[in-house]
Amino acid sequence: MEPQRMAWNGWGDPARATPLPDSVTRLLRDLLGVRPAQTPPLRLDQVKVADPRLPGDALTALAQAVGDPYVRADAETRIRHTRGKSTPDLLRIRAGEVADAPDAVVLPADHDEVLAVLRICAERRIAVVPFGGGTSVVGGLAPRADGFTGVVALDLCRLDALVDLDPVSRTAVLQPGLRAPRAEELLRERGFTLGHYPQSYEWATIGGFAAARSSGQASAGYGRFDEMVQALTVATPEGTLELGRAPRSAAGPDLRQLVLGSEGAFGVITAVTVRVRPAPAVSAYEGWRFPSFDAGTAALRRIAQDGPLPTVLRLSDETETMVGLARPDRIGALQEDGCLVVAGYEGAEEEVAARRAAVARTLREAGGEPLGAEPGESWAHGRFSAPYLRDALLDVGATAETLETATFWSKIPALYAAVRDALTGALTEAGTPPLVMCHISHVYPAGASLYFTVVSAQGPDPVEHWRRAKRAANDAIIAAGGTISHHHGVGTDHRDWYAAEIGPLAVDLLRAVKRRVDPVGILNPGVLLP
Amino acid sequence: MEPQRMAWNGWGDPARATPLPDSVTRLLRDLLGVRPAQTPPLRLDQVKVADPRLPGDALTALAQAVGDPYVRADAETRIRHTRGKSTPDLLRIRAGEVADAPDAVVLPADHDEVLAVLRICAERRIAVVPFGGGTSVVGGLAPRADGFTGVVALDLCRLDALVDLDPVSRTAVLQPGLRAPRAEELLRERGFTLGHYPQSYEWATIGGFAAARSSGQASAGYGRFDEMVQALTVATPEGTLELGRAPRSAAGPDLRQLVLGSEGAFGVITAVTVRVRPAPAVSAYEGWRFPSFDAGTAALRRIAQDGPLPTVLRLSDETETMVGLARPDRIGALQEDGCLVVAGYEGAEEEVAARRAAVARTLREAGGEPLGAEPGESWAHGRFSAPYLRDALLDVGATAETLETATFWSKIPALYAAVRDALTGALTEAGTPPLVMCHISHVYPAGASLYFTVVSAQGPDPVEHWRRAKRAANDAIIAAGGTISHHHGVGTDHRDWYAAEIGPLAVDLLRAVKRRVDPVGILNPGVLLP
Repeated sequence: MEPQRMAWNGWGDPARATPLPDSVTRLLRDLLGVRPAQTPPLRLDQVKVADPRLPGDALTALAQAVGDPYVRADAETRIRHTRGKSTPDLLRIRAGEVADAPDAVVLPADHDEVLAVLRICAERRIAVVPFGGGTSVVGGLAPRADGFTGVVALDLCRLDALVDLDPVSRTAVLQPGLRAPRAEELLRERGFTLGHYPQSYEWATIGGFAAARSSGQASAGYGRFDEMVQALTVATPEGTLELGRAPRSAAGPDLRQLVLGSEGAFGVITAVTVRVRPAPAVSAYEGWRFPSFDAGTAALRRIAQDGPLPTVLRLSDETETMVGLARPDRIGALQEDGCLVVAGYEGAEEEVAARRAAVARTLREAGGEPLGAEPGESWAHGRFSAPYLRDALLDVGATAETLETATFWSKIPALYAAVRDALTGALTEAGTPPLVMCHISHVYPAGASLYFTVVSAQGPDPVEHWRRAKRAANDAIIAAGGTISHHHGVGTDHRDWYAAEIGPLAVDLLRAVKRRVDPVGILNPGVLLP
Repeated sequence: MEPQRMAWNGWGDPARATPLPDSVTRLLRDLLGVRPAQTPPLRLDQVKVADPRLPGDALTALAQAVGDPYVRADAETRIRHTRGKSTPDLLRIRAGEVADAPDAVVLPADHDEVLAVLRICAERRIAVVPFGGGTSVVGGLAPRADGFTGVVALDLCRLDALVDLDPVSRTAVLQPGLRAPRAEELLRERGFTLGHYPQSYEWATIGGFAAARSSGQASAGYGRFDEMVQALTVATPEGTLELGRAPRSAAGPDLRQLVLGSEGAFGVITAVTVRVRPAPAVSAYEGWRFPSFDAGTAALRRIAQDGPLPTVLRLSDETETMVGLARPDRIGALQEDGCLVVAGYEGAEEEVAARRAAVARTLREAGGEPLGAEPGESWAHGRFSAPYLRDALLDVGATAETLETATFWSKIPALYAAVRDALTGALTEAGTPPLVMCHISHVYPAGASLYFTVVSAQGPDPVEHWRRAKRAANDAIIAAGGTISHHHGVGTDHRDWYAAEIGPLAVDLLRAVKRRVDPVGILNPGVLLP
């Protein structure tokens, strides 16, 4: 019933952890001054977690609601539900910091049990963190505990069914606790695909995709997750919302779009109806080289505006290309010139061939040089491995983190420069000049995303060290007119900048919504909204 | 400064009103028992409007805010801002019923003047109706007046500029009072198009499209209006909202989608940033015949799901095809068999040729018979004339009205049957068996819209007569799982069914939002929300 567990102090499957090649470690030392940390890593049984504090009858009431085996307060379960997988999260848990571990973990089986848990917690003023894959990288699983009698993690892993598949409408009703690979497997058995492949794919859940407004690596072909969602069922302390009677409607505001991106602050998503597509017959990846990030950006813009679009479309800047981050098996080779574009195609054979030829024509006209399949296949092969790489970087004393934004095409160059300069400036000033890399991985007719990867030495207080750089990047994003997140979400880490982005009246609107569905304020307090 | 005015008691340009051919009048008499009404039509100067009731200093304060010439309380201006253009609206205004005329009409010049007007009205508890083209067909311009000290129509016609065009991002900032043809003209001068052509195109405004979540006849190619919108500026009694820093974002809920479809109840939209496209080099329309509505629906579904899509794609059912409503110059010919599909293509020459060939292949494989350009060109020629036809039908004593819904593909057949049966049943029971016609005009991968046109004799009390039939149709839509409106909106006419569609908790969410931006409740009271 419960799927394979993620590493408690890192990413993914511990068996897949791989140390950095010595050559890379040397490079980090020589280039960035990275030095191994002195403290040996803690084992799980060395981490001390405080006694749970919930009010007296809470565990009994919760056990009545979901069944005894599904309320857990043991140390390991609580530690495994502590925060998410951002670099600060990992640095802190590696140091044994679990003061904000939930007091208990509750595993409901269905919508009604979720409703019951929310009622029990609202009555007792217990904060509730909806928990899917636990992959948040923005503090989305770190609610405020003060003012509450305790914190419960609501783990949705038992809501893991494909409830319905409508082959005529090409829609599927999925439960929120389904991990993406399992959802994909269930759909493929019936000839369909969801086509949603964020970097967190192997561990993240359907509910998390919806709550955090996720976007996958194949967004050019399959769309963002919010575009896939047709209907939602949401459990709130004040009852149930059932939203979405048609793909599109003019009956009032689109309330699905109010739940998508609400990050557990407005309710717990208990069913998601998504658009599905026939499983692709073929998939193909290829690489192209552009002389500069500007030239590559212009090419991507042309494809996004005039079509046709590949299924995957990415452009690495000069630094990312040089370092080989786009092709993880080549990292550290430092041999690439220019800027790498990866284009991927999925679909029916004939359709893919035609689309691929049309895109190739445009890329060539825009100054691209074809590199053949190898760089594309290499990217596809390593597409979910970067988080393992981060663990290895942390192991050798480096800080590695990512952040992303988006804006309109005409503002992309200034936003790119502003964020890069802010990160470089802040970390250099702190004595650890960084490597800042960037790619565009999601394109729209009117704009695109920018995804930054930063590597530097850790500094004496690694968490605070990174926090300062991140703050500089966030300030730069807001000042340059970008959005504070293109696909990671707001969580607690982006909350203040999010408030600046939408303005005080819009923040108040969201507060008004929250008050109506969650008058006690138990749902992920402090996440999304200040 | 003020554009050409719409007929006060009918649709559009009075010079373009055209009486029905005698053959059609005879047909209506023989087939539906339509008899001319006995009462001669009223002239504008025969309509008696009550004295305006606003509080003492209101007109002075409003004149200070927007300038003397832009506050009007004369009878004609007030009558011209009374309600919208639904069939009940027209039947009532033709009968001289203007008890709900606004007490004054205010014409602000910019965002700040809109804010000032809202403040003045909030202080004095004056209801405010944002007024664009005045084309609502769902009672969107008929707010509740009780509990208020008066009603002011806020006519946005002076906010009629193309504020900015960003050719790199392919976005344009448009003011809300811009009528669609003028917006299109301004964009075409710069080589771009919006591509939004609802049937109300010639009179409706950009602000109305956004507020009512409009969808145009070319939605297959250009998307719905809500999909075009990138950013919004909204004036509310509590201040300004600026929403949209990127085409897409994961920074919280998409608040643009909360304003789109809010129908003036949450604020006054004062600027809309839309996606634009290069003006098309060519446009081509053609007709296809399918043996049945089911066969045609299957063909449209295949195109919507597997692509490529034409720019315009419509399928008339057997009755609509027979009557010739899809080709207004043939109305009453009663000579067409099967079901007509109209497909239209706009774009670059080569691209259109390739897309047209691909769609033709699919239509042929799905059982379609090509009819050549004529039926398509005929539809395109008459695409905005149906509202004139309605005036002519009302003139000869018929009731003619339209309504629309949408759902997922698998539910389309049942929804189609349910609405048709409800309309036929209700009007037959009332002694006026109707002609009920339907078309699909907006398709999505997961579903489609159904647009019904109903013609019958008027009955002794035409407004109440139609209201009963409409109520039956609305009940049928909700029972069959459809949405109460695909593109007309909620207004006052759909309000109760909208509440049933989204449920009481969602209604309360919207109320909470409204309370925050409009605590006195002056914005279009009774529209959208009960």
